[in-house]
Amino acid sequence: MAEKARLSLNQITVNRWSVAEAVDGCVRQGIRSIALWRHKIAEAGIANCVRVVRDAGLHVTSVCRGGGFPARTAGERKKNIEDNFRAVDEAAELHADALVMVVGGCAGIGLDDARMMVADGIAELVPYTRERRVRIGLEPLHPMYAAERSVLVTIGQALDMAQAYDAREVGVILDTFHIWWDPRVEELIAQAAGRIYGFHVSDWLVPLPDVLMGRGLMGDGVIDNMKLRRLAEKAGYGGPIEVEIFNQALWDSDADAVLAQVIERFEKFV
Amino acid sequence: MAEKARLSLNQITVNRWSVAEAVDGCVRQGIRSIALWRHKIAEAGIANCVRVVRDAGLHVTSVCRGGGFPARTAGERKKNIEDNFRAVDEAAELHADALVMVVGGCAGIGLDDARMMVADGIAELVPYTRERRVRIGLEPLHPMYAAERSVLVTIGQALDMAQAYDAREVGVILDTFHIWWDPRVEELIAQAAGRIYGFHVSDWLVPLPDVLMGRGLMGDGVIDNMKLRRLAEKAGYGGPIEVEIFNQALWDSDADAVLAQVIERFEKFV
Repeated sequence: MAEKARLSLNQITVNRWSVAEAVDGCVRQGIRSIALWRHKIAEAGIANCVRVVRDAGLHVTSVCRGGGFPARTAGERKKNIEDNFRAVDEAAELHADALVMVVGGCAGIGLDDARMMVADGIAELVPYTRERRVRIGLEPLHPMYAAERSVLVTIGQALDMAQAYDAREVGVILDTFHIWWDPRVEELIAQAAGRIYGFHVSDWLVPLPDVLMGRGLMGDGVIDNMKLRRLAEKAGYGGPIEVEIFNQALWDSDADAVLAQVIERFEKFV
Repeated sequence: MAEKARLSLNQITVNRWSVAEAVDGCVRQGIRSIALWRHKIAEAGIANCVRVVRDAGLHVTSVCRGGGFPARTAGERKKNIEDNFRAVDEAAELHADALVMVVGGCAGIGLDDARMMVADGIAELVPYTRERRVRIGLEPLHPMYAAERSVLVTIGQALDMAQAYDAREVGVILDTFHIWWDPRVEELIAQAAGRIYGFHVSDWLVPLPDVLMGRGLMGDGVIDNMKLRRLAEKAGYGGPIEVEIFNQALWDSDADAVLAQVIERFEKFV
């Protein structure tokens, strides 16, 4: 089982909380790391976020998220790159392990063009992330999100893209919800050695309640989080493990109770 | 564009129709091939199905479906194999191009065990399919079905499994809804040369209305059916193309009107 010391709270799991509330919650429950979302950072202000995180002594595992590269016009793509630069700034100021990339879907664009726009977008971003010493974490999403959220859908594809860059500049984020089904998951996690910038857990509920909001607490679904965590460790990843759960029932619950449950499930099933 | 002569109606697209009604519909609309579902065959009786299909001069592209191998007990697995033998009989009597396999999910079983049960199930089936001269078409389903319907989720995985057998005994069914997202789809379809037993089209709607019932008519979503059809042809597949659409709105519509629309979209987008 994974030790609580490795748990990082992805704040979307307790979506009703602001950054300050989530930080306080972590402190109350003895959680040492946190991952912040940009719309929450925007609400609180980046300077304020940097201060509350630092004052609490928390480590920031990731900023969620950059990406969204495919767009119909050059103007939209340029505007999006500018926004990604701001995401890099936020990740730099928070000393995050990585800026997570959800690269964008193909709807309205076409799959081949969307993939090219993603590669181009990363290429435009790297000189700036290098300058700001921010690592880009490419997160392959489950293939069911290829149309609307991410044409990047497998670890293999993420590694192909990352390998154009230094292993300290561009890597991959492994989220068990997105990768558990892959028949090549063992070999691909092994191949990711040296480029694993983050590891996320949750569970796949049966039946799946919703395409976006269907995640559950570890232990409530079919994902063998422990096995996948061990594969990541075998590939050299010993860093924090984010718990990232989009689930309306959890969001509607008392957030402190959710945190306590997250810790229990983390120690038992991860 | 694909010629109408290649269109095969998968009867689930006009789910309100019986086998006889679907056969009549094909005749009225000049469709030469059909794919039948086992629950519909059971309603009509296999002898009756064989007769109406033969009298109409239709070719049967597939019987849907065998599979469902993972189960908790040896007794359930044995009972399921027996049922698969009956599916083989039906495919033999209808002279279908293939018996389509939807192999079963991992919920309640575990992913590794489920995969083993699938391999074992196919191995148990092959001597009988050989005897009855029925080809097993392994259909990789979209990874979002791994828990509940099919642990077989990529063309590569299906080919790995098929390659234990003769290329005339076990092959793959390519359904664009299930494979379009795969970054390796071009190389994998090329690798499938000689083992492509069927090709299915539909579309992926945005937003996806439902995990099971979210398919649309070709042209209404993000799938480049024409590109994928050409890749299959490049790999040597020149056989019929099934239109297989699970969509409640279509099911609720006048079936003859749906067929006319299917033909139009087939000629335009496939």
